[in-house]
Amino acid sequence: MATVPLLTDQDAPAASRAVFDDIRAARGTDYVNNFWRALAHDPDSLRAIWDRLGAVMAPGALDPLVKELVYIAVSATNGCSYCVHSHTAAARAKGMTAQQHAELLAVIGMASQTNALATALQVPTDPRFQED
Amino acid sequence: MATVPLLTDQDAPAASRAVFDDIRAARGTDYVNNFWRALAHDPDSLRAIWDRLGAVMAPGALDPLVKELVYIAVSATNGCSYCVHSHTAAARAKGMTAQQHAELLAVIGMASQTNALATALQVPTDPRFQED
Amino acid sequence: MATVPLLTDQDAPAASRAVFDDIRAARGTDYVNNFWRALAHDPDSLRAIWDRLGAVMAPGALDPLVKELVYIAVSATNGCSYCVHSHTAAARAKGMTAQQHAELLAVIGMASQTNALATALQVPTDPRFQED
Amino acid sequence: MATVPLLTDQDAPAASRAVFDDIRAARGTDYVNNFWRALAHDPDSLRAIWDRLGAVMAPGALDPLVKELVYIAVSATNGCSYCVHSHTAAARAKGMTAQQHAELLAVIGMASQTNALATALQVPTDPRFQED
Amino acid sequence: MATVPLLTDQDAPAASRAVFDDIRAARGTDYVNNFWRALAHDPDSLRAIWDRLGAVMAPGALDPLVKELVYIAVSATNGCSYCVHSHTAAARAKGMTAQQHAELLAVIGMASQTNALATALQVPTDPRFQED
Amino acid sequence: MATVPLLTDQDAPAASRAVFDDIRAARGTDYVNNFWRALAHDPDSLRAIWDRLGAVMAPGALDPLVKELVYIAVSATNGCSYCVHSHTAAARAKGMTAQQHAELLAVIGMASQTNALATALQVPTDPRFQED
Repeated sequence: MATVPLLTDQDAPAASRAVFDDIRAARGTDYVNNFWRALAHDPDSLRAIWDRLGAVMAPGALDPLVKELVYIAVSATNGCSYCVHSHTAAARAKGMTAQQHAELLAVIGMASQTNALATALQVPTDPRFQED
Repeated sequence: MATVPLLTDQDAPAASRAVFDDIRAARGTDYVNNFWRALAHDPDSLRAIWDRLGAVMAPGALDPLVKELVYIAVSATNGCSYCVHSHTAAARAKGMTAQQHAELLAVIGMASQTNALATALQVPTDPRFQED
Repeated sequence: MATVPLLTDQDAPAASRAVFDDIRAARGTDYVNNFWRALAHDPDSLRAIWDRLGAVMAPGALDPLVKELVYIAVSATNGCSYCVHSHTAAARAKGMTAQQHAELLAVIGMASQTNALATALQVPTDPRFQED
Repeated sequence: MATVPLLTDQDAPAASRAVFDDIRAARGTDYVNNFWRALAHDPDSLRAIWDRLGAVMAPGALDPLVKELVYIAVSATNGCSYCVHSHTAAARAKGMTAQQHAELLAVIGMASQTNALATALQVPTDPRFQED
Repeated sequence: MATVPLLTDQDAPAASRAVFDDIRAARGTDYVNNFWRALAHDPDSLRAIWDRLGAVMAPGALDPLVKELVYIAVSATNGCSYCVHSHTAAARAKGMTAQQHAELLAVIGMASQTNALATALQVPTDPRFQED
Repeated sequence: MATVPLLTDQDAPAASRAVFDDIRAARGTDYVNNFWRALAHDPDSLRAIWDRLGAVMAPGALDPLVKELVYIAVSATNGCSYCVHSHTAAARAKGMTAQQHAELLAVIGMASQTNALATALQVPTDPRFQED
């Protein structure tokens, strides 16, 4: 259970229902997932995050699938179970193959290992890695 | 300062010097960065991690640059200062543009925000996001 | 399931039962929640943590409700599901309104976003932010 | 050093300079701190984050000082050195006393301890803490 | 549910089945736990991690039980529920007593508390703690 | 710089000076390290943490050196630079050899890798790992 009720369309404030409608239109589905229904208690946050997410995840210098892979990597590292599940599903919907998923996981694992070692060793940054 | 001395070629065990040589050959440079010099106290770890890193970061279903972006994302989320610097430098060496960097950062920021919200709200995973 | 059995009053060591009684008296309820029942295998830890928690969360220069909000923020950031649930409930019991909860969540989300960006950018601290 | 150059007013894109001006106006100071100068490479992120931050940290059901205390708690838990320094300075500017700071730290410490214990024990959430 | 199907012996690639057999032989049991079945989609990762884990956890200058205690500590701090459960079980299988478990938890809790305080206070490292 | 001044013996409250004296007596040295000098603004926290730390780190079912190794593991995982340095120094003072240090680091690295993989895969806990 969430720490707040998940709001149905009927229970949500009108401003949040309007975001639900935007979500449906953007995704071409009637389904609005639990994250947005939990966030709907705060229409300002819901609107700000949904709008900004759309801008951030749109095609740009990086491909939308690459952005989803990065999202999974951050979510796994933060230990967010919900986010790992939802963004793994989103990456698959954007075409992530099983082989790409496997390689993503291998990179996440290696990075986590060398991060831990660099921190445990307190390795000082090489001057050549410093910008400016 | 690191929690161990950074080993020069002269001070490193022979098995670690051999890895230093592999690093130089693979990268086409004489420079061996601090992480490997700190790890060189343990030739088995140094060898295992260097070899596995090469396999994981090699071209595959994902592009090496995409893998570096994921590495940066994990390193930033884990708060590893050394790793953020070294892998940002590595991504630039592999062609990361300023625009790609900016988009990467925007995704890392958004993911961190929604991760925190999903966790603070303890949103239950939608059944449709569950595999099997 | 916990990694240890949750101890009932009957199974708990006498020194832990004494803490259970203190918990009941302090809270005016017969219910002792799972955290304390799991910790009861170690009466010294149970006593030390319960006593110190009472001192730390007592009214002082900060209001007990403010302290609960901070507790939720730390718990969410650490990804502790149990703690998010229990301290959200505790904050409500101390009067947290839905509006206060929504604003708390918005701050947690923004902080997580700018934390990630500052770390990914490795922004050096402005001298004027340094004490001394 | 940051992973990108900190942009001066002269080097920043016009859209980022406009945000710098908003920062100066909102704070009544000429000083624009490093975080914004690093973010200024991406005027869209800079604008979105500055604007949203202003809304989130404004007086509401929670006092701006309470919001700063929460910001410090999240920043410390995420291990963001820059953010701990800048938001501790911000909290002092909003009136945080030494006694309030000490109590904040004590709560952060206690929460971190019990978070770790609840996770290491994998304590199941009490049904009464679950919403709905 | 995992984000990938857990592979049975029949569904797993031959190279992964070979690792399953090594796991069975090393542990003297027919049971292969879920982690390896999830990882089996990527035989290279499965092989690399299983082999390296065996080397790292083998008796050496540190006792295998001590290594399991460290593994639990890292897993709890990273908030990995699966890993806390599996390595607590592994530690018990290697002889961890209830008293050792309680002391381990107390150290994890204390370290988490003082880590948070040192970070929130941004305490500078004493020169005498610096190697070299 | 810390977010608070490091208190000298002259500037510290009397109750904190008394803890400084206990630290000196327990360690057989005149030196009081920065962590305690930063914490000394809050004599109650200083006293509570110093006293509890002494009890937790004392010889018991686990050896004091093993406890220091666990402390390092938690500190590295939490990314606490100060704590990694101070507890690595403390472990050396308690006899940690270079080989033990290397093995500790290898375990921390492996655990961080498999933690990340188990979380990214959202592996469900095997029933046999569940207590009760």
